[in-house]
Amino acid sequence: MRNFEYHTPTRLIFGKGVVEKLPEVLGALGNKVLFAYGGGSIRKNGLYARVTELLKGFDVTELSGIEPNPKYSTSVLDGVRLCKEKGIEVILAVGGGSVLDCSKAIAAGALYDGEPWDLITYKVPTKAALPVVDIMTMAATGSEYDSGGVISRTETNDKVGYMDPHLFPVASFIDPTYTFTVPNRQTAAGVADAMNHIYEQYFNAEPNDLADGMMEAALKSLMKNVKIVLEAPGNYDARAEIFLNCSLACNGIYSLGEADSGWPMHAIEHALSAYYDITHGIGLAIITPRWMSHVLNEQTLGRFVRYGVNVMGISPELPRHTIAKQSIEATYRFFESIGIPMHLAEVGIDESRLREMAHHVAVNEGLDGKWVYAPLTEADILTILKNSL
Amino acid sequence: MRNFEYHTPTRLIFGKGVVEKLPEVLGALGNKVLFAYGGGSIRKNGLYARVTELLKGFDVTELSGIEPNPKYSTSVLDGVRLCKEKGIEVILAVGGGSVLDCSKAIAAGALYDGEPWDLITYKVPTKAALPVVDIMTMAATGSEYDSGGVISRTETNDKVGYMDPHLFPVASFIDPTYTFTVPNRQTAAGVADAMNHIYEQYFNAEPNDLADGMMEAALKSLMKNVKIVLEAPGNYDARAEIFLNCSLACNGIYSLGEADSGWPMHAIEHALSAYYDITHGIGLAIITPRWMSHVLNEQTLGRFVRYGVNVMGISPELPRHTIAKQSIEATYRFFESIGIPMHLAEVGIDESRLREMAHHVAVNEGLDGKWVYAPLTEADILTILKNSL
Repeated sequence: MRNFEYHTPTRLIFGKGVVEKLPEVLGALGNKVLFAYGGGSIRKNGLYARVTELLKGFDVTELSGIEPNPKYSTSVLDGVRLCKEKGIEVILAVGGGSVLDCSKAIAAGALYDGEPWDLITYKVPTKAALPVVDIMTMAATGSEYDSGGVISRTETNDKVGYMDPHLFPVASFIDPTYTFTVPNRQTAAGVADAMNHIYEQYFNAEPNDLADGMMEAALKSLMKNVKIVLEAPGNYDARAEIFLNCSLACNGIYSLGEADSGWPMHAIEHALSAYYDITHGIGLAIITPRWMSHVLNEQTLGRFVRYGVNVMGISPELPRHTIAKQSIEATYRFFESIGIPMHLAEVGIDESRLREMAHHVAVNEGLDGKWVYAPLTEADILTILKNSL
Repeated sequence: MRNFEYHTPTRLIFGKGVVEKLPEVLGALGNKVLFAYGGGSIRKNGLYARVTELLKGFDVTELSGIEPNPKYSTSVLDGVRLCKEKGIEVILAVGGGSVLDCSKAIAAGALYDGEPWDLITYKVPTKAALPVVDIMTMAATGSEYDSGGVISRTETNDKVGYMDPHLFPVASFIDPTYTFTVPNRQTAAGVADAMNHIYEQYFNAEPNDLADGMMEAALKSLMKNVKIVLEAPGNYDARAEIFLNCSLACNGIYSLGEADSGWPMHAIEHALSAYYDITHGIGLAIITPRWMSHVLNEQTLGRFVRYGVNVMGISPELPRHTIAKQSIEATYRFFESIGIPMHLAEVGIDESRLREMAHHVAVNEGLDGKWVYAPLTEADILTILKNSL
């Protein structure tokens, strides 16, 4: 087992009606609040009105219109400017992972005098950040229980992950009832995102039974419960189990002591959504079975066999290569069965920029390192992208 | 799923050689250190010498001789007095769960002007505690990653659990190599303790698949790895997996959103070790199958079937009552197979005080409440104890 350090200082406040505790939690952090949110969905479902009511007595500045795949040059810089102008003391992010990721970058940028991009790209270490509290409306990224975010810079086609211990939210409010109205396509994309977070940890060179078993349980729970909510969007217990699973999936608790895989599928998908602004979870679902097929070999066979038997329910009596291949086929069929378009062509991506993207990933992500679970050259990345068309 | 709040601010520092970071971690918390430990085992294995070396430059006061089932009137009160006299700023607990539990009670008592027993029994709320850092030498209680401890008061036969958010360790150093020299009987007792922590969560009225699957993985990992280390005490990976599992088993992360079971087996065992000072994990192992048999009925059958199939590997084709009964039998046989004496008589407990203990548990623990998974009257508790003889 690898040495590790694990520390998650975030307070999870989970369940029906928990948002009523917001004033107590925020009040301990400051009075000048940046209330950050995305489009109009929180106005439609009544959450905007309720939060506004709960914020009476606070000095509130709003930042609205934060986009999916949040953009540096608009949302992040706007937020940093507002924080500095208004002397903001705490950021309240209300929405999905994009709103929260953006708020984390704003929180760090607000306490830094230079160009925030230098923090996001680790050119300069992050020394402080404003406290962030969130109210989540989407189960997907797990940003509510991790120290990272993903920020896009459209001008340069960059989509980069930014992680730092200062970025853990102080508290995350998770009321699964807010996800009852999430459209099926987004629900499925969120589950695919969480499943991929688990795959990126599960396929690693130094597994242990505890971590593997936890991840197998998590994958089975996601697969079972997403089917329930696609039929019955208001099933509370299924929504809750999905949300809890999404929150834990990107936190690291599922894979303590295991080797880092290099997160190759995320590296490749970030190019897709940076170049084409597609939904992250859908991009990941499309890449997943193609990455699996590409890296299946004698070295990785054992992992795929375990996955096939323990997660996909394939008979352990079959030949090992058959189990592995069937496990990948079952993964593809599962994503298809929850309504995810499984070809890049279906989300508006053709062959024209695949080479450029493969080059971008190879240069910026270093997936050919020996520490990566199954190292990928630029040619490998291009093959995976072509097979995803 | 139940509403919950979850917050574990402790930093886990896990792996070979991690103790070298001690000065950095302690230094951030203070210079006046209470170095608390138990008997002579850390002198024998070299840890005492290494810690003393690492503490050069700190102002160190030692508190040694903390007992298993740590005692209020000696260890806790001695520690509190030392902290007050010396102006201690941080407590370093080096040892197993007893040393750490004791240190947590000292940490709270040191910042309270009255009788510390009032804090431990919740007569007075805990408002502050000194920071506690630990170096663990036993995999068992999980005290290194929870906010509780168990303190015994011999004069009154009380053994009480004391939990408060102020009692989370700031940092826990876990180097599994320190457990290579733990005798087999203690290793087995530690694993039985962790398994029982999981049973107390697993058998509850509102399960969910994610939590259940995590706990099933944890139980299987413990059962597999304890067999390995009993044969090969120096197997690092097996020791590490056991230790990580013990740390997580009492933390709550395995059962987020599930109902509280009332922890009936712990309630009963606390009487055994309060009256007879036996090893906690051994008492739990003895009680476990007797509790299981006593509470198996039509309402609880489904849980036992799931446990039997998913953890004990019993065929799902068998009749449900057969699976349940075999699962309990398999639990008994497993504990027996790792060398645990499975009768109270073998640990020096006869029938003479069973009635008194059953009465003590019934009066002090309230196990007949409707919120308890399988409510127990005083007569039920007595039956379980008698069946354990």
